[in-house]
Amino acid sequence: MSSFPSDPDAASGSASASATLDTLTELRALTRTFAAERDWGQFHTPKNLAMALSVEVAELVEHFQWLRTGELQELDQRKLEGIRHEMADVLLYLVQLADRTGVDLRAAALEKLRMNAEKYPVEKVKGDARKYDEY
Amino acid sequence: MSSFPSDPDAASGSASASATLDTLTELRALTRTFAAERDWGQFHTPKNLAMALSVEVAELVEHFQWLRTGELQELDQRKLEGIRHEMADVLLYLVQLADRTGVDLRAAALEKLRMNAEKYPVEKVKGDARKYDEY
Amino acid sequence: MSSFPSDPDAASGSASASATLDTLTELRALTRTFAAERDWGQFHTPKNLAMALSVEVAELVEHFQWLRTGELQELDQRKLEGIRHEMADVLLYLVQLADRTGVDLRAAALEKLRMNAEKYPVEKVKGDARKYDEY
Amino acid sequence: MSSFPSDPDAASGSASASATLDTLTELRALTRTFAAERDWGQFHTPKNLAMALSVEVAELVEHFQWLRTGELQELDQRKLEGIRHEMADVLLYLVQLADRTGVDLRAAALEKLRMNAEKYPVEKVKGDARKYDEY
Repeated sequence: MSSFPSDPDAASGSASASATLDTLTELRALTRTFAAERDWGQFHTPKNLAMALSVEVAELVEHFQWLRTGELQELDQRKLEGIRHEMADVLLYLVQLADRTGVDLRAAALEKLRMNAEKYPVEKVKGDARKYDEY
Repeated sequence: MSSFPSDPDAASGSASASATLDTLTELRALTRTFAAERDWGQFHTPKNLAMALSVEVAELVEHFQWLRTGELQELDQRKLEGIRHEMADVLLYLVQLADRTGVDLRAAALEKLRMNAEKYPVEKVKGDARKYDEY
Repeated sequence: MSSFPSDPDAASGSASASATLDTLTELRALTRTFAAERDWGQFHTPKNLAMALSVEVAELVEHFQWLRTGELQELDQRKLEGIRHEMADVLLYLVQLADRTGVDLRAAALEKLRMNAEKYPVEKVKGDARKYDEY
Repeated sequence: MSSFPSDPDAASGSASASATLDTLTELRALTRTFAAERDWGQFHTPKNLAMALSVEVAELVEHFQWLRTGELQELDQRKLEGIRHEMADVLLYLVQLADRTGVDLRAAALEKLRMNAEKYPVEKVKGDARKYDEY
Protein backbone atom coordinates (compact mmCIF):
# COMPACT_ATOMS: atom_id res chain seq x y z
CA MET A 1 0.00 0.00 0.00
CA SER A 2 2.74 2.39 0.95
CA SER A 3 5.55 3.02 -1.45
CA PHE A 4 7.84 3.91 1.42
CA PRO A 5 10.74 1.52 1.54
CA SER A 6 10.62 -0.85 4.51
CA ASP A 7 13.94 -2.37 3.69
CA PRO A 8 16.78 -0.37 5.28
CA ASP A 9 19.03 -0.93 2.31
CA ALA A 10 16.35 0.24 -0.05
CA ALA A 11 15.67 3.26 2.12
CA SER A 12 19.22 4.48 2.21
CA GLY A 13 19.23 4.24 -1.53
CA SER A 14 20.96 2.05 -4.01
CA ALA A 15 24.51 2.91 -4.89
CA SER A 16 23.42 4.56 -8.07
CA ALA A 17 20.74 6.64 -6.34
CA SER A 18 23.11 8.00 -3.70
CA ALA A 19 25.62 8.77 -6.40
CA THR A 20 23.20 11.01 -8.26
CA LEU A 21 20.86 12.44 -5.64
CA ASP A 22 21.86 15.09 -3.15
CA THR A 23 20.56 14.30 0.35
CA LEU A 24 18.34 17.37 0.41
CA THR A 25 16.80 16.41 -2.93
CA GLU A 26 16.38 12.82 -1.81
CA LEU A 27 14.66 13.82 1.44
CA ARG A 28 12.41 16.23 -0.42
CA ALA A 29 11.18 13.41 -2.63
CA LEU A 30 10.68 11.03 0.29
CA THR A 31 8.80 13.55 2.44
CA ARG A 32 6.59 14.49 -0.51
CA THR A 33 5.60 10.86 -0.95
CA PHE A 34 5.15 10.37 2.78
CA ALA A 35 2.78 13.33 3.13
CA ALA A 36 0.91 12.59 -0.10
CA GLU A 37 0.19 9.00 0.92
CA ARG A 38 -1.33 10.25 4.17
CA ASP A 39 -3.13 13.20 2.61
CA TRP A 40 -1.31 15.45 5.08
CA GLY A 41 -0.50 18.22 2.60
CA GLN A 42 -3.68 19.99 3.72
CA PHE A 43 -2.14 20.55 7.17
CA HIS A 44 1.25 21.55 5.85
CA THR A 45 0.89 25.27 5.42
CA PRO A 46 4.22 27.10 5.75
CA LYS A 47 3.03 28.48 9.09
CA ASN A 48 2.15 25.07 10.50
CA LEU A 49 5.41 23.53 9.27
CA ALA A 50 7.36 26.34 10.94
CA MET A 51 5.53 25.64 14.21
CA ALA A 52 6.17 21.89 13.90
CA LEU A 53 9.83 22.64 13.28
CA SER A 54 10.00 24.73 16.45
CA VAL A 55 8.39 21.93 18.47
CA GLU A 56 10.96 19.40 17.22
CA VAL A 57 13.82 21.75 18.06
CA ALA A 58 12.46 22.08 21.60
CA GLU A 59 12.41 18.29 21.92
CA LEU A 60 16.06 18.42 20.95
CA VAL A 61 16.78 21.19 23.46
CA GLU A 62 15.03 19.19 26.19
CA HIS A 63 17.87 16.66 26.18
CA PHE A 64 20.30 19.42 27.15
CA GLN A 65 18.29 21.49 29.59
CA TRP A 66 19.66 20.23 32.91
CA LEU A 67 23.22 19.47 31.82
CA ARG A 68 25.97 21.29 33.70
CA THR A 69 28.30 22.04 30.82
CA GLY A 70 26.54 20.60 27.79
CA GLU A 71 29.78 19.32 26.33
CA LEU A 72 29.91 16.11 24.35
CA GLN A 73 31.29 13.96 27.15
CA GLU A 74 28.23 14.76 29.27
CA LEU A 75 25.98 12.98 26.75
CA ASP A 76 25.51 9.26 27.36
CA GLN A 77 24.49 6.78 24.65
CA ARG A 78 20.81 7.11 25.48
CA LYS A 79 20.85 10.89 25.20
CA LEU A 80 22.86 10.75 21.98
CA GLU A 81 20.29 8.43 20.44
CA GLY A 82 17.45 10.75 21.46
CA ILE A 83 19.31 13.77 20.12
CA ARG A 84 19.95 11.96 16.83
CA HIS A 85 16.23 11.26 16.36
CA GLU A 86 15.24 14.84 17.12
CA MET A 87 17.84 16.22 14.71
CA ALA A 88 16.34 13.98 12.05
CA ASP A 89 12.88 15.43 12.72
CA VAL A 90 14.27 18.95 12.50
CA LEU A 91 15.86 18.23 9.12
CA LEU A 92 12.71 16.55 7.78
CA TYR A 93 10.48 19.50 8.67
CA LEU A 94 13.04 21.97 7.39
CA VAL A 95 13.13 20.19 4.03
CA GLN A 96 9.33 20.20 3.86
CA LEU A 97 9.11 23.89 4.73
CA ALA A 98 11.69 24.70 2.06
CA ASP A 99 9.73 22.62 -0.42
CA ARG A 100 6.48 24.45 0.37
CA THR A 101 8.06 27.89 0.15
CA GLY A 102 10.20 27.19 -2.91
CA VAL A 103 13.46 27.77 -1.08
CA ASP A 104 16.69 26.18 -2.34
CA LEU A 105 18.27 25.31 1.00
CA ARG A 106 21.79 24.83 -0.36
CA ALA A 107 21.85 28.14 -2.19
CA ALA A 108 20.34 29.90 0.84
CA ALA A 109 22.90 28.39 3.23
CA LEU A 110 25.84 29.30 0.98
CA GLU A 111 24.56 32.83 0.62
CA LYS A 112 24.07 33.15 4.39
CA LEU A 113 27.62 31.93 5.02
CA ARG A 114 28.91 34.67 2.74
CA MET A 115 26.79 37.26 4.54
CA ASN A 116 28.04 36.02 7.91
CA ALA A 117 31.62 36.20 6.71
CA GLU A 118 31.11 39.88 5.95
CA LYS A 119 29.24 40.57 9.18
CA TYR A 120 31.83 38.83 11.35
CA PRO A 121 35.27 39.53 9.85
CA VAL A 122 37.91 37.21 11.26
CA GLU A 123 40.18 39.99 12.45
CA LYS A 124 37.37 41.61 14.41
CA VAL A 125 35.61 38.73 16.12
CA LYS A 126 38.26 36.09 16.70
CA GLY A 127 37.54 34.32 19.98
CA ASP A 128 34.64 36.59 20.82
CA ALA A 129 31.05 35.37 20.74
CA ARG A 130 29.24 38.64 21.17
CA LYS A 131 26.61 39.41 18.61
CA TYR A 132 27.81 41.49 15.71
CA ASP A 133 25.66 44.45 16.74
CA GLU A 134 27.31 44.58 20.14
CA TYR A 135 30.58 45.76 18.64
CA MET B 1 43.07 36.50 5.72
CA SER B 2 39.92 34.47 5.57
CA SER B 3 39.82 31.42 3.38
CA PHE B 4 36.09 31.78 3.03
CA PRO B 5 35.22 32.32 -0.61
CA SER B 6 33.92 35.78 -1.34
CA ASP B 7 33.18 34.96 -4.93
CA PRO B 8 29.66 33.53 -5.29
CA ASP B 9 30.77 31.07 -7.91
CA ALA B 10 33.58 29.89 -5.72
CA ALA B 11 31.28 29.60 -2.75
CA SER B 12 28.71 27.47 -4.47
CA GLY B 13 31.52 25.21 -5.51
CA SER B 14 33.13 24.43 -8.78
CA ALA B 15 31.28 22.06 -11.04
CA SER B 16 33.51 19.23 -10.03
CA ALA B 17 33.07 19.95 -6.32
CA SER B 18 29.29 20.04 -6.50
CA ALA B 19 29.35 16.85 -8.51
CA THR B 20 31.15 14.99 -5.78
CA LEU B 21 30.12 16.63 -2.51
CA ASP B 22 26.75 16.13 -0.90
CA THR B 23 25.33 19.44 0.36
CA LEU B 24 25.44 18.32 3.99
CA THR B 25 29.10 17.33 3.63
CA GLU B 26 29.89 20.57 1.85
CA LEU B 27 28.22 22.69 4.54
CA ARG B 28 29.97 20.74 7.27
CA ALA B 29 33.33 21.59 5.76
CA LEU B 30 32.44 25.26 5.27
CA THR B 31 31.07 25.72 8.81
CA ARG B 32 34.14 24.01 10.27
CA THR B 33 36.39 26.46 8.49
CA PHE B 34 34.18 29.40 9.40
CA ALA B 35 34.23 28.57 13.13
CA ALA B 36 37.92 27.64 13.18
CA GLU B 37 38.96 30.91 11.57
CA ARG B 38 37.09 32.81 14.28
CA ASP B 39 38.16 30.52 17.13
CA TRP B 40 34.48 29.99 17.91
CA GLY B 41 34.73 26.26 18.53
CA GLN B 42 35.14 27.01 22.24
CA PHE B 43 31.55 28.34 22.36
CA HIS B 44 30.11 25.54 20.26
CA THR B 45 29.23 22.95 22.85
CA PRO B 46 26.36 20.71 21.75
CA LYS B 47 24.14 22.44 24.34
CA ASN B 48 24.95 25.92 23.08
CA LEU B 49 24.46 24.92 19.45
CA ALA B 50 21.07 23.44 20.31
CA MET B 51 20.09 26.73 21.97
CA ALA B 52 21.32 28.75 18.99
CA LEU B 53 19.32 26.47 16.70
CA SER B 54 16.17 27.13 18.74
CA VAL B 55 16.76 30.88 18.55
CA GLU B 56 17.06 30.76 14.75
CA VAL B 57 13.88 28.69 14.46
CA ALA B 58 12.05 31.29 16.52
CA GLU B 59 13.26 34.02 14.15
CA LEU B 60 11.74 31.93 11.39
CA VAL B 61 8.49 31.49 13.32
CA GLU B 62 8.34 35.24 13.94
CA HIS B 63 7.61 35.84 10.25
CA PHE B 64 4.44 33.76 10.57
CA GLN B 65 3.11 34.77 13.97
CA TRP B 66 0.41 37.23 12.98
CA LEU B 67 -0.65 35.69 9.67
CA ARG B 68 -4.29 34.69 9.38
CA THR B 69 -3.90 31.42 7.50
CA GLY B 70 -0.15 31.07 7.04
CA GLU B 71 -0.54 29.74 3.53
CA LEU B 72 2.01 30.49 0.85
CA GLN B 73 0.00 33.24 -0.85
CA GLU B 74 -0.02 35.23 2.38
CA LEU B 75 3.78 35.59 2.19
CA ASP B 76 5.02 38.60 0.25
CA GLN B 77 8.48 38.84 -1.31
CA ARG B 78 9.94 40.54 1.72
CA LYS B 79 8.69 37.87 4.10
CA LEU B 80 9.86 35.09 1.78
CA GLU B 81 13.34 36.56 1.72
CA GLY B 82 13.44 36.78 5.50
CA ILE B 83 12.16 33.22 5.81
CA ARG B 84 14.79 32.03 3.39
CA HIS B 85 17.60 33.56 5.43
CA GLU B 86 16.31 32.08 8.68
CA MET B 87 15.96 28.62 7.13
CA ALA B 88 19.59 28.91 6.08
CA ASP B 89 20.62 29.68 9.67
CA VAL B 90 18.63 26.72 10.93
CA LEU B 91 20.38 24.38 8.49
CA LEU B 92 23.83 25.79 9.29
CA TYR B 93 23.40 25.28 13.04
CA LEU B 94 21.89 21.84 12.52
CA VAL B 95 24.89 20.79 10.45
CA GLN B 96 27.25 22.10 13.12
CA LEU B 97 25.40 20.32 15.92
CA ALA B 98 25.46 17.07 13.94
CA ASP B 99 29.16 17.54 13.37
CA ARG B 100 29.84 18.09 17.07
CA THR B 101 27.78 15.07 18.15
CA GLY B 102 28.97 12.74 15.40
CA VAL B 103 25.50 12.34 13.91
CA ASP B 104 25.10 11.34 10.26
CA LEU B 105 22.10 13.52 9.38
CA ARG B 106 21.18 11.62 6.22
CA ALA B 107 21.20 8.21 7.90
CA ALA B 108 19.27 9.62 10.88
CA ALA B 109 16.60 11.20 8.66
CA LEU B 110 16.12 8.05 6.59
CA GLU B 111 15.82 5.96 9.75
CA LYS B 112 13.31 8.42 11.23
CA LEU B 113 11.22 8.29 8.06
CA ARG B 114 11.05 4.52 8.37
CA MET B 115 10.04 4.81 12.03
CA ASN B 116 7.38 7.36 11.16
CA ALA B 117 6.04 5.10 8.41
CA GLU B 118 5.48 2.39 11.00
CA LYS B 119 4.04 4.75 13.60
CA TYR B 120 1.60 6.34 11.14
CA PRO B 121 0.39 3.59 8.78
CA VAL B 122 -1.30 5.06 5.71
CA GLU B 123 -4.55 3.17 6.19
CA LYS B 124 -4.89 4.44 9.75
CA VAL B 125 -3.98 8.10 9.55
CA LYS B 126 -4.98 9.22 6.07
CA GLY B 127 -6.23 12.82 6.22
CA ASP B 128 -5.98 12.95 9.99
CA ALA B 129 -3.32 15.07 11.73
CA ARG B 130 -3.79 13.88 15.29
CA LYS B 131 -0.68 12.69 17.01
CA TYR B 132 -0.09 8.96 16.80
CA ASP B 133 -0.69 8.52 20.54
CA GLU B 134 -4.13 10.04 20.29
CA TYR B 135 -5.42 7.04 18.35
CA MET C 1 8.10 14.85 54.65
CA SER C 2 7.07 17.35 52.08
CA SER C 3 5.68 20.63 53.19
CA PHE C 4 3.84 21.02 49.93
CA PRO C 5 0.11 21.14 50.54
CA SER C 6 -1.69 18.06 49.27
CA ASP C 7 -5.08 19.44 50.14
CA PRO C 8 -6.47 21.53 47.25
CA ASP C 9 -8.00 24.02 49.62
CA ALA C 10 -4.72 24.42 51.45
CA ALA C 11 -2.86 24.78 48.17
CA SER C 12 -5.01 27.52 46.83
CA GLY C 13 -4.41 29.35 50.07
CA SER C 14 -6.59 30.26 52.96
CA ALA C 15 -8.74 33.35 52.58
CA SER C 16 -6.29 35.39 54.60
CA ALA C 17 -3.30 34.20 52.54
CA SER C 18 -4.92 35.05 49.22
CA ALA C 19 -5.91 38.40 50.61
CA THR C 20 -2.32 39.32 51.38
CA LEU C 21 -0.16 37.46 48.88
CA ASP C 22 0.07 38.39 45.25
CA THR C 23 -0.01 35.31 42.99
CA LEU C 24 3.53 35.90 41.75
CA THR C 25 4.82 36.16 45.30
CA GLU C 26 2.85 33.09 46.34
CA LEU C 27 4.20 31.02 43.42
CA ARG C 28 7.73 32.19 44.13
CA ALA C 29 7.48 30.88 47.68
CA LEU C 30 5.95 27.58 46.59
CA THR C 31 8.51 26.92 43.83
CA ARG C 32 11.36 27.78 46.21
CA THR C 33 10.12 25.17 48.66
CA PHE C 34 9.49 22.65 45.89
CA ALA C 35 13.02 22.95 44.50
CA ALA C 36 14.70 23.10 47.91
CA GLU C 37 12.99 19.91 49.10
CA ARG C 38 14.31 18.08 46.02
CA ASP C 39 17.75 19.71 46.11
CA TRP C 40 17.14 20.88 42.54
CA GLY C 41 18.57 24.36 43.01
CA GLN C 42 21.92 23.05 41.72
CA PHE C 43 20.37 22.50 38.27
CA HIS C 44 18.48 25.80 38.23
CA THR C 45 21.03 28.12 36.71
CA PRO C 46 19.37 31.03 34.87
CA LYS C 47 20.49 29.47 31.58
CA ASN C 48 18.95 26.09 32.35
CA LEU C 49 15.71 27.65 33.57
CA ALA C 50 15.47 29.67 30.35
CA MET C 51 15.91 26.47 28.34
CA ALA C 52 13.29 24.65 30.41
CA LEU C 53 10.93 27.57 29.87
CA SER C 54 11.42 27.31 26.10
CA VAL C 55 10.71 23.58 26.20
CA GLU C 56 7.43 24.14 28.08
CA VAL C 57 6.38 26.83 25.62
CA ALA C 58 6.99 24.40 22.76
CA GLU C 59 4.77 21.83 24.48
CA LEU C 60 2.12 24.55 24.54
CA VAL C 61 2.70 25.38 20.87
CA GLU C 62 2.42 21.69 19.96
CA HIS C 63 -1.30 21.76 20.76
CA PHE C 64 -1.80 24.39 18.07
CA GLN C 65 0.54 23.24 15.32
CA TRP C 66 -1.91 21.52 12.98
CA LEU C 67 -4.97 23.68 13.61
CA ARG C 68 -6.43 25.45 10.59
CA THR C 69 -7.30 28.78 12.16
CA GLY C 70 -6.20 28.40 15.76
CA GLU C 71 -9.24 30.24 17.05
CA LEU C 72 -10.82 29.35 20.36
CA GLN C 73 -13.68 27.33 18.87
CA GLU C 74 -11.19 24.96 17.27
CA LEU C 75 -9.97 23.85 20.72
CA ASP C 76 -11.87 20.94 22.23
CA GLN C 77 -11.99 20.21 25.95
CA ARG C 78 -9.04 17.83 25.78
CA LYS C 79 -6.84 20.38 24.04
CA LEU C 80 -7.89 23.14 26.41
CA GLU C 81 -6.92 21.00 29.39
CA GLY C 82 -3.52 20.28 27.84
CA ILE C 83 -3.00 23.94 27.05
CA ARG C 84 -3.93 24.89 30.61
CA HIS C 85 -1.31 22.55 32.06
CA GLU C 86 1.42 23.82 29.75
CA MET C 87 0.60 27.45 30.54
CA ALA C 88 0.98 26.56 34.21
CA ASP C 89 4.45 25.11 33.53
CA VAL C 90 5.43 28.24 31.62
CA LEU C 91 4.37 30.46 34.52
CA LEU C 92 6.14 28.29 37.09
CA TYR C 93 9.46 28.38 35.23
CA LEU C 94 9.11 32.09 34.53
CA VAL C 95 8.62 32.76 38.24
CA GLN C 96 11.68 30.65 39.08
CA LEU C 97 13.83 32.38 36.48
CA ALA C 98 12.74 35.78 37.79
CA ASP C 99 13.55 34.64 41.31
CA ARG C 100 17.04 33.49 40.30
CA THR C 101 17.84 36.67 38.40
CA GLY C 102 16.31 39.05 40.93
CA VAL C 103 13.71 40.36 38.48
CA ASP C 104 10.47 41.90 39.76
CA LEU C 105 8.08 40.53 37.15
CA ARG C 106 5.27 42.97 37.88
CA ALA C 107 7.48 46.05 37.65
CA ALA C 108 9.14 44.70 34.50
CA ALA C 109 5.78 44.00 32.82
CA LEU C 110 4.38 47.43 33.67
CA GLU C 111 7.53 49.10 32.36
CA LYS C 112 7.40 47.05 29.15
CA LEU C 113 3.76 48.00 28.61
CA ARG C 114 4.75 51.65 28.85
CA MET C 115 7.60 51.14 26.41
CA ASN C 116 5.26 49.31 24.01
CA ALA C 117 2.74 52.12 24.23
CA GLU C 118 5.42 54.53 23.04
CA LYS C 119 6.70 52.21 20.34
CA TYR C 120 3.25 51.47 18.95
CA PRO C 121 1.22 54.70 19.20
CA VAL C 122 -2.50 54.03 18.73
CA GLU C 123 -2.90 56.50 15.88
CA LYS C 124 -0.09 54.85 13.94
CA VAL C 125 -0.70 51.13 14.33
CA LYS C 126 -4.45 50.73 14.72
CA GLY C 127 -5.53 47.48 13.05
CA ASP C 128 -2.05 46.77 11.72
CA ALA C 129 0.11 43.98 13.11
CA ARG C 130 3.36 44.76 11.37
CA LYS C 131 6.35 45.04 13.62
CA TYR C 132 7.15 48.54 14.73
CA ASP C 133 10.39 48.59 12.74
CA GLU C 134 8.55 47.88 9.51
CA TYR C 135 6.94 51.31 9.54
CA MET D 1 -6.03 59.47 22.79
CA SER D 2 -4.65 56.44 24.56
CA SER D 3 -5.89 55.60 28.00
CA PHE D 4 -2.67 53.85 28.79
CA PRO D 5 -0.99 55.53 31.71
CA SER D 6 2.17 57.37 30.76
CA ASP D 7 2.92 58.27 34.31
CA PRO D 8 4.93 55.53 36.03
CA ASP D 9 3.07 56.01 39.28
CA ALA D 10 -0.24 55.74 37.54
CA ALA D 11 0.88 52.64 35.66
CA SER D 12 1.94 50.75 38.72
CA GLY D 13 -1.41 51.52 40.21
CA SER D 14 -2.56 53.67 43.04
CA ALA D 15 -1.98 52.31 46.51
CA SER D 16 -5.57 51.20 46.77
CA ALA D 17 -5.49 49.47 43.39
CA SER D 18 -2.36 47.49 44.17
CA ALA D 19 -3.86 46.51 47.48
CA THR D 20 -6.89 44.96 45.83
CA LEU D 21 -5.71 43.78 42.41
CA ASP D 22 -3.61 40.70 41.93
CA THR D 23 -0.79 41.28 39.41
CA LEU D 24 -2.23 38.75 36.96
CA THR D 25 -5.62 40.45 37.10
CA GLU D 26 -4.04 43.86 36.75
CA LEU D 27 -1.99 42.81 33.70
CA ARG D 28 -5.03 41.20 32.11
CA ALA D 29 -6.91 44.46 32.32
CA LEU D 30 -3.98 46.50 30.98
CA THR D 31 -3.29 44.16 28.05
CA ARG D 32 -6.99 44.10 27.16
CA THR D 33 -7.03 47.87 26.94
CA PHE D 34 -3.74 47.95 25.05
CA ALA D 35 -4.95 45.51 22.38
CA ALA D 36 -8.43 47.04 22.13
CA GLU D 37 -7.06 50.54 21.55
CA ARG D 38 -4.96 49.22 18.66
CA ASP D 39 -7.68 46.93 17.30
CA TRP D 40 -5.20 44.06 17.60
CA GLY D 41 -7.70 41.55 18.98
CA GLN D 42 -8.27 40.31 15.42
CA PHE D 43 -4.67 39.00 15.30
CA HIS D 44 -4.78 37.50 18.78
CA THR D 45 -6.06 34.02 18.13
CA PRO D 46 -4.86 31.52 20.76
CA LYS D 47 -2.59 29.98 18.12
CA ASN D 48 -0.96 33.28 17.19
CA LEU D 49 -0.50 34.26 20.83
CA ALA D 50 1.18 30.90 21.52
CA MET D 51 3.55 31.54 18.61
CA ALA D 52 4.30 35.07 19.80
CA LEU D 53 4.99 33.68 23.27
CA SER D 54 7.49 31.20 21.81
CA VAL D 55 9.24 33.98 19.91
CA GLU D 56 9.64 36.08 23.07
CA VAL D 57 11.00 33.09 24.98
CA ALA D 58 13.60 32.59 22.25
CA GLU D 59 14.64 36.24 22.58
CA LEU D 60 15.15 35.49 26.26
CA VAL D 61 17.12 32.31 25.48
CA GLU D 62 19.30 34.24 23.04
CA HIS D 63 20.91 36.12 25.94
CA PHE D 64 22.16 32.82 27.36
CA GLN D 65 23.17 30.91 24.24
CA TRP D 66 26.94 31.41 24.28
CA LEU D 67 27.48 31.55 28.03
CA ARG D 68 29.84 28.96 29.49
CA THR D 69 27.99 28.14 32.67
CA GLY D 70 24.88 30.30 32.53
CA GLU D 71 25.10 31.08 36.22
CA LEU D 72 24.00 34.43 37.60
CA GLN D 73 27.51 35.85 37.96
CA GLU D 74 28.08 35.42 34.22
CA LEU D 75 25.29 37.95 33.49
CA ASP D 76 26.42 41.55 33.32
CA GLN D 77 24.12 44.52 33.86
CA ARG D 78 23.37 44.87 30.17
CA LYS D 79 22.37 41.23 29.81
CA LEU D 80 20.27 41.38 32.96
CA GLU D 81 18.37 44.36 31.61
CA GLY D 82 17.71 42.57 28.32
CA ILE D 83 16.61 39.43 30.15
CA ARG D 84 14.27 41.48 32.32
CA HIS D 85 12.56 43.00 29.28
CA GLU D 86 12.13 39.63 27.58
CA MET D 87 10.68 38.07 30.74
CA ALA D 88 8.16 40.91 30.79
CA ASP D 89 7.14 40.12 27.21
CA VAL D 90 6.75 36.45 28.07
CA LEU D 91 4.48 37.28 31.00
CA LEU D 92 2.40 39.73 28.95
CA TYR D 93 1.75 37.21 26.18
CA LEU D 94 1.05 34.45 28.69
CA VAL D 95 -1.55 36.62 30.40
CA GLN D 96 -3.17 37.40 27.05
CA LEU D 97 -3.24 33.76 25.99
CA ALA D 98 -4.80 32.80 29.32
CA ASP D 99 -7.37 35.55 28.87
CA ARG D 100 -8.28 34.34 25.38
CA THR D 101 -8.58 30.70 26.43
CA GLY D 102 -10.37 31.36 29.70
CA VAL D 103 -7.57 29.88 31.80
CA ASP D 104 -7.16 30.92 35.45
CA LEU D 105 -3.36 31.01 35.60
CA ARG D 106 -3.13 30.93 39.39
CA ALA D 107 -5.43 27.95 39.76
CA ALA D 108 -3.65 26.15 36.91
CA ALA D 109 -0.20 26.76 38.44
CA LEU D 110 -1.27 25.59 41.89
CA GLU D 111 -2.82 22.46 40.42
CA LYS D 112 0.31 21.75 38.37
CA LEU D 113 2.49 22.12 41.45
CA ARG D 114 0.37 19.50 43.21
CA MET D 115 0.64 17.19 40.20
CA ASN D 116 4.41 17.69 40.09
CA ALA D 117 4.69 16.94 43.81
CA GLU D 118 3.06 13.58 43.17
CA LYS D 119 5.10 12.86 40.07
CA TYR D 120 8.41 13.73 41.71
CA PRO D 121 8.22 12.53 45.33
CA VAL D 122 10.99 14.07 47.43
CA GLU D 123 12.37 10.75 48.65
CA LYS D 124 12.72 9.49 45.09
CA VAL D 125 14.16 12.42 43.15
CA LYS D 126 16.25 14.34 45.66
CA GLY D 127 19.30 15.78 43.88
CA ASP D 128 18.45 14.05 40.61
CA ALA D 129 17.24 15.99 37.58
CA ARG D 130 16.26 13.11 35.33
CA LYS D 131 12.77 13.28 33.96
CA TYR D 132 10.21 11.38 35.98
CA ASP D 133 9.69 8.84 33.19
CA GLU D 134 13.36 7.90 33.24
CA TYR D 135 13.02 6.25 36.64
